[in-house]
Amino acid sequence: MAEYKLHCFAQSGNAYKPALMLSLAGADWESVFVDFFNGVTRGDEYRGSTNEMGEAPVLEHAGKSMSQSGAILHYLVKRLNRFGGKTEEEEIEILRWILFDNHKFTSYIATYRFLTHFMKTGETPVTEFFKARMMAAIAVLEKRLTGRKFVATDELTIADISLCGYLFMEDEFGVSWSDNPAIGAWLERVKSQAGWQHPYEMMPGHPLPSKT
Amino acid sequence: MAEYKLHCFAQSGNAYKPALMLSLAGADWESVFVDFFNGVTRGDEYRGSTNEMGEAPVLEHAGKSMSQSGAILHYLVKRLNRFGGKTEEEEIEILRWILFDNHKFTSYIATYRFLTHFMKTGETPVTEFFKARMMAAIAVLEKRLTGRKFVATDELTIADISLCGYLFMEDEFGVSWSDNPAIGAWLERVKSQAGWQHPYEMMPGHPLPSKT
Repeated sequence: MAEYKLHCFAQSGNAYKPALMLSLAGADWESVFVDFFNGVTRGDEYRGSTNEMGEAPVLEHAGKSMSQSGAILHYLVKRLNRFGGKTEEEEIEILRWILFDNHKFTSYIATYRFLTHFMKTGETPVTEFFKARMMAAIAVLEKRLTGRKFVATDELTIADISLCGYLFMEDEFGVSWSDNPAIGAWLERVKSQAGWQHPYEMMPGHPLPSKT
Repeated sequence: MAEYKLHCFAQSGNAYKPALMLSLAGADWESVFVDFFNGVTRGDEYRGSTNEMGEAPVLEHAGKSMSQSGAILHYLVKRLNRFGGKTEEEEIEILRWILFDNHKFTSYIATYRFLTHFMKTGETPVTEFFKARMMAAIAVLEKRLTGRKFVATDELTIADISLCGYLFMEDEFGVSWSDNPAIGAWLERVKSQAGWQHPYEMMPGHPLPSKT
């Protein structure tokens, strides 16, 4: 049995964050498939046994179980001794960008993608609202990365790992990184790390079964 | 000059989080008014000088400046030696709830309130979307607090301080705590702490000037 067990599914950029970190660090991990698209995370059984917040990912390690990708990433920094800050100031800066990611970046991108790409709602007042906020958040990151190699410090940290969670699936939310060249170049730097894989290769459940 | 300077405004539950922590800890702090409703945070000057994320709160302390309430709360734990976890497991649990707050709780409540209470959009497809997500997040917290005194540990921590940010203004997003008695009782426990004040008393800018 692997040391780390990650409850995840291929389409989840939030699950990709710890999956990517475990892979980049060469950790001994395995995935446990969460059948999100059949409603598993919304059911009482999952909420009772796995995560009261009704979400993936969940990490199991050393008899403990925890959720929220940003909390898992911080836990893994201590276990793997990789991708953290070297000073308290760097740690605060990393946390600041992870919170921005959760509050304003991943949250809007993931919801916009879910509605348009998976629910196929077409453009609605709701998707227009999320699209505007998504584009504003992308502009903040593009500006931040202009002239910088990585988001929070000089090196790859969990802030980068968090923010890039959905960004390799950009065709599914209608953004091209050629319009955001600083983000595009930064994503190439992430992709060049040993152990990198696309979320659809790294986690189970892709492609979705076709409905018949 | 006070030791801590908090850029904030009365209507911001996110700014209230560090303001409340500073007050409960009896810290020497003062507020710097951010004229959010006249667009200050969205302007280039504020983004350039104060916060590239274009948001309040921002904390200034010891020559440093930082944003994102959850990062500020973690910084203050180290400075004030209050409201943190006693073990690494408690720290991860605290962070998990602060991330839930930023991702799913405050984010939906604040946006719903902003649209309905301040922008006065009335109920629209967008507000209906946010209301449904807000109510689902409130249900997660109500369940969590049933049979517990505080959210993350046995004592008041920054997880409680983060999650309660908007909850004393519940009339502005149409929720009654009598329908969520565990949250209601927990809010009374927060209110009973020495140094507690309502956000409208604690920070500048209330009431809004009437438009003529």
